[in-house]
Amino acid sequence: MRNIIIGQSGGPTAVINASLYGVAMEAREQGVHAYGMVNGIEGFLEDRIVNLSDYSRMKDFDLLKTTPAAFLGSCRYRLPEDLDNAVYSIVFKKLEDLEIDAFFYIGGNDSMDTVDKLRRYGKQIGSDICFVGVPKTIDNDLAVTDHTPGYGSTAKFVAATVRDIVWDAGVYARPVVTIVELMGRNAGWVTAASMLARTSFEPNPMLIYLPEETFDVTDFIRDVKEALSENNSVVICVSEGIKDSTGRLICEYEEESMEDQFGHKMLAGCAAVLERFVKRSIGCKCRSIELNLPQRCTSIMISATDSDEAEAAGRFALKSAMMNKGLANGKVVIFKRAEGPKYHIEYEMVPVEEVSNKEKLFPEKWIINGNDISVDFLEYVRPLIQGENHIKYENGIPKIMKPAYNNNQSF
Amino acid sequence: MRNIIIGQSGGPTAVINASLYGVAMEAREQGVHAYGMVNGIEGFLEDRIVNLSDYSRMKDFDLLKTTPAAFLGSCRYRLPEDLDNAVYSIVFKKLEDLEIDAFFYIGGNDSMDTVDKLRRYGKQIGSDICFVGVPKTIDNDLAVTDHTPGYGSTAKFVAATVRDIVWDAGVYARPVVTIVELMGRNAGWVTAASMLARTSFEPNPMLIYLPEETFDVTDFIRDVKEALSENNSVVICVSEGIKDSTGRLICEYEEESMEDQFGHKMLAGCAAVLERFVKRSIGCKCRSIELNLPQRCTSIMISATDSDEAEAAGRFALKSAMMNKGLANGKVVIFKRAEGPKYHIEYEMVPVEEVSNKEKLFPEKWIINGNDISVDFLEYVRPLIQGENHIKYENGIPKIMKPAYNNNQSF
Repeated sequence: MRNIIIGQSGGPTAVINASLYGVAMEAREQGVHAYGMVNGIEGFLEDRIVNLSDYSRMKDFDLLKTTPAAFLGSCRYRLPEDLDNAVYSIVFKKLEDLEIDAFFYIGGNDSMDTVDKLRRYGKQIGSDICFVGVPKTIDNDLAVTDHTPGYGSTAKFVAATVRDIVWDAGVYARPVVTIVELMGRNAGWVTAASMLARTSFEPNPMLIYLPEETFDVTDFIRDVKEALSENNSVVICVSEGIKDSTGRLICEYEEESMEDQFGHKMLAGCAAVLERFVKRSIGCKCRSIELNLPQRCTSIMISATDSDEAEAAGRFALKSAMMNKGLANGKVVIFKRAEGPKYHIEYEMVPVEEVSNKEKLFPEKWIINGNDISVDFLEYVRPLIQGENHIKYENGIPKIMKPAYNNNQSF
Repeated sequence: MRNIIIGQSGGPTAVINASLYGVAMEAREQGVHAYGMVNGIEGFLEDRIVNLSDYSRMKDFDLLKTTPAAFLGSCRYRLPEDLDNAVYSIVFKKLEDLEIDAFFYIGGNDSMDTVDKLRRYGKQIGSDICFVGVPKTIDNDLAVTDHTPGYGSTAKFVAATVRDIVWDAGVYARPVVTIVELMGRNAGWVTAASMLARTSFEPNPMLIYLPEETFDVTDFIRDVKEALSENNSVVICVSEGIKDSTGRLICEYEEESMEDQFGHKMLAGCAAVLERFVKRSIGCKCRSIELNLPQRCTSIMISATDSDEAEAAGRFALKSAMMNKGLANGKVVIFKRAEGPKYHIEYEMVPVEEVSNKEKLFPEKWIINGNDISVDFLEYVRPLIQGENHIKYENGIPKIMKPAYNNNQSF
């Protein structure tokens, strides 16, 4: 193998750089030269590339594993559906100029679509460049795989943060409702992880609402009143993507109540919308909290299991391409959980089309009454949040690696 | 000394329990019996007390130092201005029944007001019970003291979290504005700490607005446009309490505001208001983020310096009362920073009336052009965020102590 190139795409996760580290270190150990695309395929089209092998020879390159966000920068660029589009021949010309034998793309659903299209175009022109996907997404919504790298760290962050919010919210001897809004788009995996905040002596979060179930505001208010009859402090976790029976997002309800002085509609989060419903219908103290970006970019709460698996996925992708370029082409790394009581993951390659443009939602069997999660889910999720990375500190905050791109300039 | 009693009051901090640990452990070491008030003076009036000495003899009592929120529960209860009110004789009767010689109250401005009133009433009736304040507030707005316990951990959390948000926001090669809203009420200390997120290679957060300076939306939009001409990604940190030249809160531009029992405005939402101004006036992608409760209750980002000082403040309060009850009465522990290059804190007692119902705002001399902070502030704040506590984990998240109160019931 001559050269490889690696890109990162889509929203960051806490361990997307651990996967990059995995591919780059495995390449170094196997004596393969590695390039990096800056801002994914979008930057590649503008010839923005870096020499990753230079980085992987640095003595503190392992700092990359605990560096948040995308070291190479990212993009949200969708390749055209029409393979006759000129962009494909441009990409392949550039890849050939760089003598690239394998192309690794670390990303979620949409990024797997990119891998699939490049593989199909390559096949059409008889190219033998190998295109491999390395999964990442905090949403855990990729098909086929047991879970995705990135999810474990987000679940760990959500569990710890919601637990701390629960204690904070419960210090006063007065009724109070706290609504925490969590990420995950159409899938409830991230929100379900808030269940990990419960203990034998603390029932909160008492109510958990996922987007997989129809959300009804009347039922919600009834649930909250009932919870308040048992507990002074009621903490509720909701997914950003909850919808009513007509398919309308709850966060879109805001349009009715919130227009600014210019008549512009304000799109706030669903938790803020529900806060107003609680204040209006119940009248007790209520606070809404959106955990927002820290869910996906924190450097202070990375799951060691997640980080190790993300790195292993990157290494496995490189090894598979080294072993058999033709066989690895158009494949994505997935995780298989071994049967039995001891948590163990095996890595496999499956065709990207089995994964791209699909969503794996939270299973119905683990949703109880539309407002709670089955304890069976704990068996699934608990292993994913185990272990802590050793974090190096500098000036009192986690030390990170300077990214490969320079955002101190407009491109 | 026969018995002492300790209470916690006001909003939690990451180290309010470290101060409780300090008083309780020092009491144990000095052979003094300690009670705890559940939900502060409010719960004490309802006879909700616990035997703290039982806790301090537990072998894992040091877990309390890394347990978030208030172990004894808290309250926002203001004693009547009129010392002839019957509540005072009730409090003192209860204290005498328990044979209390010293009363310790861990809290902020409003809690010091409670200490002051009890001291004054005690003087009036010739009581020799000693009332001592132990400071806490993430806002760092207490007068006289160099800084307050709780602020260092919040500053550390804000520095690390804003830094992670900066990297996340900057991964795309497109103009994007991210507005982060931080706590602190009328004081800019918490927001100013976001400056710690900057590095030699990353200018963000490029703009920082504190409530001490008049906020003008036109100037703000001009600042943002200018920043966007230098950088693709512009991260802005704003205090929840920013106001315009008429004294109107920016968050009130769109949202209704509420007041708590002390008549303090409940602040939320100025970042969301500014997000809409940016979208309307500049039209680029813009996201607002409220860091919210995790700023004050996180168990995952405690400053060891802050935690050690909080504990030391508790121990110093107990020792002072032991040494001379009369002299300690009506006093609060304050921090004095030693002159010279090496950071060192000395503890002193000052009369609570010098501290209660006052605010120490962020110094004008450290505010630059209304949208930035002087590097001189770094010398002040950096020592406060140094060091990490050893955190014990259980099931993948920080292990905490079960609180002394039970919120699984309505009081």
